Amino acid sequence: MKKGLAQTVMARLEALGRITDEPGRLTRTFCSPAMQRANQLVNSWMRQAGMTVRQDAIGNLIGHYAAEQRCQAHEKVLLLGSHLDTVRNAGKFDGPLGVLTAIACVQQLHEKNIRLPFAVEVAAFGDEEGVRFQKAYIGSTALAGTFDARDLKRTDAEGITMEAAIRDFGGNPNQLASARLNPDRLLGYAEVHIEQGPLLENKKLPLGVVTAIAGQTRAHLAFNGRAGHAGTTPMALRRDALCAAAQLILEVEALAKNQAGLVATVGALQAFPGVSNVIPAQAQLSLDLRHPVDDVRRSACAELRKRARTIATARKLQVHWEAVSETAAVQCDSRLSAVLGEAVKQHQKSLVRLPSGAGHDAAAMAAIAPVAMLFVRCKGGISHHPEESASEADIRIAIAVMGDFLQRLAALHYEKL
Amino acid sequence: MKKGLAQTVMARLEALGRITDEPGRLTRTFCSPAMQRANQLVNSWMRQAGMTVRQDAIGNLIGHYAAEQRCQAHEKVLLLGSHLDTVRNAGKFDGPLGVLTAIACVQQLHEKNIRLPFAVEVAAFGDEEGVRFQKAYIGSTALAGTFDARDLKRTDAEGITMEAAIRDFGGNPNQLASARLNPDRLLGYAEVHIEQGPLLENKKLPLGVVTAIAGQTRAHLAFNGRAGHAGTTPMALRRDALCAAAQLILEVEALAKNQAGLVATVGALQAFPGVSNVIPAQAQLSLDLRHPVDDVRRSACAELRKRARTIATARKLQVHWEAVSETAAVQCDSRLSAVLGEAVKQHQKSLVRLPSGAGHDAAAMAAIAPVAMLFVRCKGGISHHPEESASEADIRIAIAVMGDFLQRLAALHYEKL
Repeated sequence: MKKGLAQTVMARLEALGRITDEPGRLTRTFCSPAMQRANQLVNSWMRQAGMTVRQDAIGNLIGHYAAEQRCQAHEKVLLLGSHLDTVRNAGKFDGPLGVLTAIACVQQLHEKNIRLPFAVEVAAFGDEEGVRFQKAYIGSTALAGTFDARDLKRTDAEGITMEAAIRDFGGNPNQLASARLNPDRLLGYAEVHIEQGPLLENKKLPLGVVTAIAGQTRAHLAFNGRAGHAGTTPMALRRDALCAAAQLILEVEALAKNQAGLVATVGALQAFPGVSNVIPAQAQLSLDLRHPVDDVRRSACAELRKRARTIATARKLQVHWEAVSETAAVQCDSRLSAVLGEAVKQHQKSLVRLPSGAGHDAAAMAAIAPVAMLFVRCKGGISHHPEESASEADIRIAIAVMGDFLQRLAALHYEKL
Repeated sequence: MKKGLAQTVMARLEALGRITDEPGRLTRTFCSPAMQRANQLVNSWMRQAGMTVRQDAIGNLIGHYAAEQRCQAHEKVLLLGSHLDTVRNAGKFDGPLGVLTAIACVQQLHEKNIRLPFAVEVAAFGDEEGVRFQKAYIGSTALAGTFDARDLKRTDAEGITMEAAIRDFGGNPNQLASARLNPDRLLGYAEVHIEQGPLLENKKLPLGVVTAIAGQTRAHLAFNGRAGHAGTTPMALRRDALCAAAQLILEVEALAKNQAGLVATVGALQAFPGVSNVIPAQAQLSLDLRHPVDDVRRSACAELRKRARTIATARKLQVHWEAVSETAAVQCDSRLSAVLGEAVKQHQKSLVRLPSGAGHDAAAMAAIAPVAMLFVRCKGGISHHPEESASEADIRIAIAVMGDFLQRLAALHYEKL
């Protein structure tokens, strides 16, 4: 494993980190001028790695590294990649790390003049975060053929439709079907991504193999009680909505602590009228519930809903539960993940398998291909923040593991031939 | 007891309720044009009740009903009253009820041609709520001689100083000492006020005698934890500031429920960053703690401070406790309250004695005189709101009780002669 590749990836992460739509901070959104420049740069790196490059109808950049000649007639494809767009005021690793480690792997093959029995493609998706059009996975759903054409009518903050943005970017909103990959040719999709959580750091391990991308329930709750004077209303006669919310928050925490793999968060809370000398008449709160197994998440959600009602009844309050959204879990492919796990075991002392609480392009790609994900240790668990960081040493191991992964898949492919 | 007096009080409450500085809702503040009109009206009612009327140097209106002639040489004074200013978007009863029932009592004496062995004065204070200058009890502290002249430099929302406002109102900010009542002449101060709480309604009783005006501690707390991705941070690795706040809110409630007379309220709570998919890094909350006995309040406060620290330590958070204000409790005079209690027992089936969680002019007057307070049942416990209400039937009993109270004091006074 050459030391140079990880260094190159670090330098390229820095270079992409400077390409932004907002001066002073990193924000790069779908089909924006910054994305145009990012695609140009990534295009040049893909070509340096021996790939032919195309930009598809929705604006994804796709590099192609052909299979060995005898396999080109019915060429199968292993797709690697991640996204190039960012959240607002982003870190440099979320997305680009997966694109750049994939290019590094292909560059390694190219420099050694190695061809595999399948083509390796690297997808640099134009949108995963959904910042510009409040719609996530635009790039990967186009590849998976699950993009909903009605979303073309969405507008950004300046009133520009997605359709117009794609056209201005050089894409073709009328030909989005052409972006769809042929599932019959696809061996699988593998994505390297920064963990965005503290688990690997906590276990002192550089890498982890993802088991599943958690499903998510989002809900909005309101407890309705009765306002009252903080000085003149005896405790026994109060109907304090904030006390009910406090009780539920602790129930949410306790439930999640007692159920392996479940994460549950009350991130937003507002008390009304919200002044120090008035008993809160209303408390509104958000609930975010995630688990890699949908049934576990759903029953946890039902249990919390029951507890919210119990709390409200005991306190003579009303509770209103509004379901905001529900996303099913996506399981990573066991075979592909096992091969990835074997590669990890060659390069670090133990294999850790962990679910992803955040969504990724792999979730969209799972609609048409087996998917696998490799997480890279994230400094302090911090993500979606300028301080987001992964070390060069860990990235070096990730590139080595992905190289090993490709070789193992090639070997398995030969066995099948 | 004439039916007419309570009817008159109700009609006058309505009339005053229409005198406002803000069209469409009742807001009448210190030295405002509405207060000018209110004083004119109340002045005319005082004169109808046989009183001579003066407006003092700070703008309080004071009616004087002289003692019987043989007692006029060294005339003692019993002061009745309450305030004429209101909160924003106020109800019609908080303040004016005490002024108008006092006038009704004097009117009753006047109509029957009765003089007492002491003068009865009725104070209509110009400010108790502190809305205009963010300073409460302006009127009663001037009478008590505890007004802080530095407050004259305070400005209202339009930049007008209190000094200029008093002068424009016809007062004299350089002669505020002249407003001070002579404590040696003062037999006591008695105030009728709407309860502003649900206790009397709950006990199905029209009236209650106040034991003390509770002392109050206000504090502002902040728990500081660590933000994190709601999907990727395992429960065991979280430092959730909102969960800590929730725990404290329930501790506050439990402590107050287990300590008779203690009321404790978290009215304001804010979570930061306050979005559904981020673990709260900070939670800020208000604490309002009241009890008629200062030691009980202080030890409850110390206990909660300890519990906040315990919660923070267990969760690996920091907690910051900022003392906002502390007001000592004011005890009502036992002798004056006993006389008032005897009068109450003549007019309703049982005597209930209760502390006041809210502040009142009586708290300021206690600096120079024995004080007593009579609470009138408050519909739904609602106050500081347009729906604030007391019934004509209850007000009729309150006038009767206050008339009886005056007669009992007169009898006691004769006994002493």
